Amino acid sequence: MKYLFVLLLAGLTAGAQIKKEELNLMPWPQTVAVNEGIFTLKRDFKVNIVGNPNPRIFGGVTRFLRRLDGRTGMFFEQGFISRLNEVPTAQLQINCTKSGKIGLYEDESYHLDIKQNQITINAVSDLGALHGLETLLQMLQNTSTSFYFPAAQISDFPRFTWRGLMIDAARHFQPIDVIKRNIDGLAAMKMNVFHWHLVDDQGWRIEMKKHPKLIELASDGLYYTQEEIKNIVKYADERGILIVPEIDVPGHGSAILTAYPEIGSKVITLKGGTAENNIQGSAIATYGIERNAGIFSPTLDPSNPKTYQLLSEIFDEVCPLFPGAYFHIGGDENEGKDWDANPKIQEFKKKNKLATNHELQTYFTMQLVPMLKKHGKQLMGWEEIMTKNMSKDAIIHSWRGPNEGMVAGQSLVDAVKKGYKTVLSNGYYIDLMYPVGSHYLNDPMPKDATLTADEKARILGGEATMWSELATASTIDSRIWPRTAAIAERLWSAEEVTDLASMRKRLDVISFRLEELGLTHIRNKAVILRNIANNQNIKSLNEFTNVCEPLKGYTRNKGGTEYQMYSPFTLFADACTSDAKDALGFDAVVNQYLAGKTPENKAKVTAYLNKWIAVNKGLIELSANAPLVQPILPLSKKLNDASQALLLVLDNKSTLKKDDLKRIIEDCNTKEDADVELAVYESLKKLI
Amino acid sequence: MKYLFVLLLAGLTAGAQIKKEELNLMPWPQTVAVNEGIFTLKRDFKVNIVGNPNPRIFGGVTRFLRRLDGRTGMFFEQGFISRLNEVPTAQLQINCTKSGKIGLYEDESYHLDIKQNQITINAVSDLGALHGLETLLQMLQNTSTSFYFPAAQISDFPRFTWRGLMIDAARHFQPIDVIKRNIDGLAAMKMNVFHWHLVDDQGWRIEMKKHPKLIELASDGLYYTQEEIKNIVKYADERGILIVPEIDVPGHGSAILTAYPEIGSKVITLKGGTAENNIQGSAIATYGIERNAGIFSPTLDPSNPKTYQLLSEIFDEVCPLFPGAYFHIGGDENEGKDWDANPKIQEFKKKNKLATNHELQTYFTMQLVPMLKKHGKQLMGWEEIMTKNMSKDAIIHSWRGPNEGMVAGQSLVDAVKKGYKTVLSNGYYIDLMYPVGSHYLNDPMPKDATLTADEKARILGGEATMWSELATASTIDSRIWPRTAAIAERLWSAEEVTDLASMRKRLDVISFRLEELGLTHIRNKAVILRNIANNQNIKSLNEFTNVCEPLKGYTRNKGGTEYQMYSPFTLFADACTSDAKDALGFDAVVNQYLAGKTPENKAKVTAYLNKWIAVNKGLIELSANAPLVQPILPLSKKLNDASQALLLVLDNKSTLKKDDLKRIIEDCNTKEDADVELAVYESLKKLI
Repeated sequence: MKYLFVLLLAGLTAGAQIKKEELNLMPWPQTVAVNEGIFTLKRDFKVNIVGNPNPRIFGGVTRFLRRLDGRTGMFFEQGFISRLNEVPTAQLQINCTKSGKIGLYEDESYHLDIKQNQITINAVSDLGALHGLETLLQMLQNTSTSFYFPAAQISDFPRFTWRGLMIDAARHFQPIDVIKRNIDGLAAMKMNVFHWHLVDDQGWRIEMKKHPKLIELASDGLYYTQEEIKNIVKYADERGILIVPEIDVPGHGSAILTAYPEIGSKVITLKGGTAENNIQGSAIATYGIERNAGIFSPTLDPSNPKTYQLLSEIFDEVCPLFPGAYFHIGGDENEGKDWDANPKIQEFKKKNKLATNHELQTYFTMQLVPMLKKHGKQLMGWEEIMTKNMSKDAIIHSWRGPNEGMVAGQSLVDAVKKGYKTVLSNGYYIDLMYPVGSHYLNDPMPKDATLTADEKARILGGEATMWSELATASTIDSRIWPRTAAIAERLWSAEEVTDLASMRKRLDVISFRLEELGLTHIRNKAVILRNIANNQNIKSLNEFTNVCEPLKGYTRNKGGTEYQMYSPFTLFADACTSDAKDALGFDAVVNQYLAGKTPENKAKVTAYLNKWIAVNKGLIELSANAPLVQPILPLSKKLNDASQALLLVLDNKSTLKKDDLKRIIEDCNTKEDADVELAVYESLKKLI
Repeated sequence: MKYLFVLLLAGLTAGAQIKKEELNLMPWPQTVAVNEGIFTLKRDFKVNIVGNPNPRIFGGVTRFLRRLDGRTGMFFEQGFISRLNEVPTAQLQINCTKSGKIGLYEDESYHLDIKQNQITINAVSDLGALHGLETLLQMLQNTSTSFYFPAAQISDFPRFTWRGLMIDAARHFQPIDVIKRNIDGLAAMKMNVFHWHLVDDQGWRIEMKKHPKLIELASDGLYYTQEEIKNIVKYADERGILIVPEIDVPGHGSAILTAYPEIGSKVITLKGGTAENNIQGSAIATYGIERNAGIFSPTLDPSNPKTYQLLSEIFDEVCPLFPGAYFHIGGDENEGKDWDANPKIQEFKKKNKLATNHELQTYFTMQLVPMLKKHGKQLMGWEEIMTKNMSKDAIIHSWRGPNEGMVAGQSLVDAVKKGYKTVLSNGYYIDLMYPVGSHYLNDPMPKDATLTADEKARILGGEATMWSELATASTIDSRIWPRTAAIAERLWSAEEVTDLASMRKRLDVISFRLEELGLTHIRNKAVILRNIANNQNIKSLNEFTNVCEPLKGYTRNKGGTEYQMYSPFTLFADACTSDAKDALGFDAVVNQYLAGKTPENKAKVTAYLNKWIAVNKGLIELSANAPLVQPILPLSKKLNDASQALLLVLDNKSTLKKDDLKRIIEDCNTKEDADVELAVYESLKKLI
């Protein structure tokens, strides 16, 4: 008994001497020094705020207390905090010099000092203090019976001023609660920009009082009221987040043109009469809300004064909803097909000496600059808006890469060299289901280009983009998180913080903690699997998600027509995520085994193989009463067959010819089944 | 191979010959006839609507299609439905004679006819048609590879016209998405009333433009904007749900009086001067938002004209938000302490010949009747509003029972005998965590009382009440569902539908299906357990939730002071629910074993006991790195000890004295640990 007591104490002390590398902080702060000693949390833990912060700090601290209380079950005595210097003797003292301004270039730094009996957060602005509170939450440690913060000093500030997430609420409408919980996620990850993609071919999502047709005809009833938008803007402000709205023009215009076909570029030629006396005329084309994914031709007519009148009126109504200084007008993927086919537009080009469609689009975009300036807004657009005549005030959103036939990040370098400010999204397309490591190592600061200090300063930061062709309110969180946390680290932390293993270890814990904000990236997987399993046990299905990843890039939605915006997203691929949980672990044990073929190392490999054989059996059993399991069976059979073959190989009992074995393994390298791929194929191959 | 084919066909045929009892319908329809044959679902499945329905049917059918598509993964071709007779050849034909009116006594009947190639829903109103679509969704069956509806004829209508759920958004504020998804749950269960408890001691939750103090001082910033309320009303209307708002007066007044202390009843006597020359005066008391649960004294002053002026202005602002014909004014639990102590109020009573506080309250309530009538609203109140002078137009909400020293449902009988219409909530207090069976067998129609047909007709129905002292947005769904579905059946189905086993079997499936509406009653359990487990494996914790139930009645929150409104609800008790999953199963195998002590029957019992020993071991392991597991260990140890002792007993190897064994089992009968109780105690006892 005495011995046990000593052990427990030892455990406690070990806790107190936590090493810097053991902390699960994300984004990793600029400087961290762990000291001796701990601050033990007790029920009487209280917070006091002094200085001149924005009142948003009160809500921020109240939420901090509730989250800490939820994690620890402590029943803190302090409830709602609503004024300065409420508890001068509180253990946590927060001091902010000034009210933080929502926008770029604000001082977001903080200094967190944890001592044995006192914690202080000093920050210039309350925005920095909110970041400090997030770091403090991440510092929470525990013994077997208590919670504590290790003594430490942390000084921190962001590397880039633009750390954003875009959510596409046009293709699949995303209800208010999706937006809110993701804004909470951004704040927890010290991000500061929410880019709200509100209009696209698939819908117009902003209530318009002066142009109700946009809602009546082009939203399917799925839109945000103006009051809801104001409410979200306030919610974001309270969390230190700037909202940048986007209305995508002149391309991606199906929804706008469904309501206002008269400003479309398409020409309908009417032919009639007889062969001798033929009559020709033209008519306004009609448009419909787009139901598929892809690039479509509906485009606003840049030669029509009505186009500018409507846009001006739209901006007059929409701009006041968003107090931020930036407005995104899209401008991407206009292929100009309808422009080329429209004689009136061709004539307009000639008259205005616009040699190319690109120049015509610049002409168009330049008309929007004063409309936005009138409301104190700077124009931002996808990289296509950048041409020689484009205003240098515009912010260039760099997005294209090899998939679009471009050098990754080239437009970013071009932009800063030409004097534009720019934000990087190429490499941060989280909807494409690429592994977290690829996003993490994608630095906004180009490694190869030689840039001056001024040019570098014009690289504002980056933005994760969550396009929603294949994501509904139920699945979108699992596409955004946890990978966006790794992107947040790239944008906040020092350039040399690039250790993948450390990032993955910390990301596991961060992902778990993000649940407390209501994010559904973990919990909704079981919901999808229960539906697939037809309310039977989901164990085998869940195990199988640990080796399957949704098809990457644009391959899942072949040509954009397999999934309509109203297709079911309750399928196996929707339960799977990138970075399948067992893939790395299996690869590690395979490598270990190949490096040293001990019985222990072999056992680790065979444990996986036997598990997958059992999973296949389990899935077959499930499928007897679950039609949605059927599409998965061929794939699980392939993994089963490979596993069985490899077990024999490992036991030196295989009677297969080398080529047959190869074929069995190669069968696992497939994109044919259930819109997923096996994430363990490369590792299996190593075992041949 | 031929044999397998025959077997598969047999399976299919078996599916086609589903028996009525196998259907998982809830609420059970008035008449169900299953016929031979099936309607097989295919991708080209489409719906057509004819007649004169309210346009809400279009959204209803679109949602029906998406839900069916989500369950089946069929990729139906039909997207958004927006007009009548869109696809005359569609397989599902819906015909409604007229536009349904949201409110009581509307015709909600429907007739569903499933034939091999055609399904029809005939209904007088679209409200009936929406019910029919819910039934059709519940009719969905599957083979191993396909989905189908069995041929059937169903005629259905509700037994009671008031089938409600109350959610208390005052004690714990419940965000919009909680309200919306629960309204979807109500619609799925053919319920038609959502009673929104918006004001109580703990907060005022309605944005007030003319009286902003109510929000500024009495809401902690947690309230619904008027636009949000209108939005919810519209959302409910689209789903056939009437909203009945509640502002609870004159008791439960802490929040109102925090903003308007001048209309409170409390008297502060000021004393000063000297013993010889004493000075007395009175002052207005100050009030604060209540943070605890319980019955508190802050009460509006019924003798003060300002009280009525304020209430009248409040109703003028709030009534137009709710188009429904009923307004609930609370009126419960006014103990009159502050009235008794207030000389001015005593004088007022005398002057107005009001003998008791009860008569005084009636005086008060009667002043509200014309304020509401002005807006076309009928007054509803908790049963305390009923006195001899109360208007017969008022609806009496019967809620008290033995816990309040009353005979259960007595006020209901009293009310109808006196000529009032009434709604039953006694017996439907789902926040108290009683088993589903107790609610299910609680019929609004009293069994003992002799009532005339007219009196019976005045029993409008019933309402599940979800008070939120102990429920946050994260946990409230698991308190409401699935038990409210059983209450829905009580209120809709025929009186004689009372088979508990059938209800439980169907409820399992219904509960699973409710997930598709976004309800979190299943998924959020794992979230709480992951937090308790500190991100370790939750298997043991989850197993333990299967034998633990939260303390019932008012015992968890002893005296209302253990949990404040800002306390953590992330504890083990919050992950547990009533009707612990393993309790019934274990009781069944114990009974089986006692009836026949075969090795097989014994093995079934020992499997449970061994599981609980393993669970205890698992929890101890978890607790090494999870402080929140610690409070559970004493209880799991008790179950472990009882299990070990009983294993020996079953093996005839026990060396314990009878009394010692009894004590070990009796230790399992405890409410001391972690706010839960062991649901298997009674069954364990049987094994001694």
